Amino acid sequence: MDPDLSQLADHLDDAGVDGYLVDADGTDSTQRYLSGFDAPDPFSTVYTPETTAILVSALEFGRAKTASRADDVSRLADYDYRELVSEHGAAAAKARVVAAWLDDLGVERVATPDRFPLGPADRLRERGLGITPDADDVVTEIRARKTPEEVDNVREAQRANEAAMRATETLLREADVGETDNDGAVLRHDGEVLTSERVKVEIESTLLEHGCGLDETIVACGTDAADPHNRGSGPLRPDEPIIVDIFPRSKTTGYHADMTRTFCKGEPDGTLVEWFDRTDAAREAALDAVVPGATGAAVHDAVCDVYENAGLPTLRSDPTTETGFIHSTGHGVGLDVHELPRVAPDGDELRPGHVITIEPGLYDPSVGGVRIEDLVVVTEDGYENLTDYPVELQV
Amino acid sequence: MDPDLSQLADHLDDAGVDGYLVDADGTDSTQRYLSGFDAPDPFSTVYTPETTAILVSALEFGRAKTASRADDVSRLADYDYRELVSEHGAAAAKARVVAAWLDDLGVERVATPDRFPLGPADRLRERGLGITPDADDVVTEIRARKTPEEVDNVREAQRANEAAMRATETLLREADVGETDNDGAVLRHDGEVLTSERVKVEIESTLLEHGCGLDETIVACGTDAADPHNRGSGPLRPDEPIIVDIFPRSKTTGYHADMTRTFCKGEPDGTLVEWFDRTDAAREAALDAVVPGATGAAVHDAVCDVYENAGLPTLRSDPTTETGFIHSTGHGVGLDVHELPRVAPDGDELRPGHVITIEPGLYDPSVGGVRIEDLVVVTEDGYENLTDYPVELQV
Repeated sequence: MDPDLSQLADHLDDAGVDGYLVDADGTDSTQRYLSGFDAPDPFSTVYTPETTAILVSALEFGRAKTASRADDVSRLADYDYRELVSEHGAAAAKARVVAAWLDDLGVERVATPDRFPLGPADRLRERGLGITPDADDVVTEIRARKTPEEVDNVREAQRANEAAMRATETLLREADVGETDNDGAVLRHDGEVLTSERVKVEIESTLLEHGCGLDETIVACGTDAADPHNRGSGPLRPDEPIIVDIFPRSKTTGYHADMTRTFCKGEPDGTLVEWFDRTDAAREAALDAVVPGATGAAVHDAVCDVYENAGLPTLRSDPTTETGFIHSTGHGVGLDVHELPRVAPDGDELRPGHVITIEPGLYDPSVGGVRIEDLVVVTEDGYENLTDYPVELQV
Repeated sequence: MDPDLSQLADHLDDAGVDGYLVDADGTDSTQRYLSGFDAPDPFSTVYTPETTAILVSALEFGRAKTASRADDVSRLADYDYRELVSEHGAAAAKARVVAAWLDDLGVERVATPDRFPLGPADRLRERGLGITPDADDVVTEIRARKTPEEVDNVREAQRANEAAMRATETLLREADVGETDNDGAVLRHDGEVLTSERVKVEIESTLLEHGCGLDETIVACGTDAADPHNRGSGPLRPDEPIIVDIFPRSKTTGYHADMTRTFCKGEPDGTLVEWFDRTDAAREAALDAVVPGATGAAVHDAVCDVYENAGLPTLRSDPTTETGFIHSTGHGVGLDVHELPRVAPDGDELRPGHVITIEPGLYDPSVGGVRIEDLVVVTEDGYENLTDYPVELQV
């Protein structure tokens, strides 16, 4: 099912421009969403209320005609690109070609994504094209509301995610406590030290079997877990928190899932248990706040309330704190693993079809870290939790 | 070993600007090269001849202080970001913070990568910052010349690549000819139809064991192989060309390798054998042309000469041809899988430390496709072939 772009047509009308221009490769999610095409090098797409047209290199021309969503596929060579390169150099030649192509389409003024490339924009402006970067990135707002098919794509990636989390938990359950190194006891599996790296290979292999890939994953133990974006490395240890955060991408559809669990093999200390329970309560409070019409800010506040009522620092109570709850509650998930809507202090209204994470967490080098993350879709009357995985600290 | 940025300092001096500003996430190779930091959301880096400074969110602050190459790490909160967001919205707040941070560093005029984001640039210009996008992307020129350590990083990824190619070849050798479907006979392995998808899982698993990942790989058979960027799908077939193009990225270093071989299980027809031999001759002619001081254009011409002398079409002889040799001879490889220098009609001078592919190929839906790709580093007196893999059609 093609996306409903009527909101984009309205936006262009309001902005007084003829089209919406994208210059990006297929890893850019707005490019992929509008063009329906995935290519490794940047290409141009222009959406107008009448048509979607793309301009590609000779190399991509054949595939673009069959695989893209565009009504109209042109190639650089149609506009004497090689000759222009000889005369003016590659950058200026590209601008002349794009300007001529837009002229053929009757497009004189465009809006663009906020992160449209500056050099091409400056050169097109010099050739008379009106370009207004759209700071609100209207397409990311449109992308945020998923069709049922898109939700199914996320759901499918989340099933792969759960298989990978189960494989992780199995490794931890099977592990025992091995020798002690300079930093304390380590976990052992199959006679080898169980490391963050070993677990990540297990996660990625499992995702691969399920048609997903990922660039990064987090398996962070002890003090590594105290830094929310530390990917983790080295031996995993008993009695310490182990944060496992997996965000795979379906190789077929390009859609992501996202889930975090925190495990402890052995005996967690009292603070860790309290943090875990508090974080699970924060997760539930946030979920209770997810209804269409509520703001992402209100959902975030629900988490801050739980933590602050327990005397724990948050960025809301202390904007410079480096311990406690030091990130946002969540984010949208789709073609990008981080996209709209925000579930954060500046989060706007939640609407049906929004797919968001709820991921409260606490961090302190003296304790480690705890994070619990579910993935949910906002429905007409609340939410559906797309996550089917238990929340248990001890394994 | 940190990169030698004296060429960048000279460039800033020539351009009459104080610094070089990057606004990108860690997947942007210029960002990673200059900052030495990898983060999932965009952050700012400014290089000046005196210092390299980065500006990150609170979330990344701890890790940035230890993991980045920056002399100076600031965070948005140091400039009252939250308050500014409340007052002006996120986009304008970010511009105010970046402007204040640059002001503290004494930076009034910057050059940027050509694809610096337009919205942030427009907002910084409104606040008085002078911004000149660098169409020549001087940092990509600096990145093109690898240090010995960087070449070792590529070499290491190429060893993983060869293991994956061997695993592919083994699958094809072990295969036999199975039942016939609507499109003809199919290959069979372990009692199952051997598909492009199955081979890709084997490639990715092998790369994973060797510390590499990849987003895409090409295993394209028959008419799929006639389209250079078709990733391939479905059953692999006897007597047809199977193009296998693997471009892994080391998870540790971020550096890529790149290699293509074309295999045929069974009996290739006469045209396919001729195309293969011609393409191998084109590869050798191109390699013979690789010396420091020669241009990428001259290396590309060597390939066109071989094909055109055999009466085969190229984009040089016919810019609109859709069959024959319809892409460039090669490209640089490093933190990006496609980077400078170009080995193409507009390719500039090759210099020692350039890591480039040599990948002639022929395409026609009536024949399929053939491509053979080696990866080499330009040396003081020629080149070193980083590829250690036989060139043989029949398996």
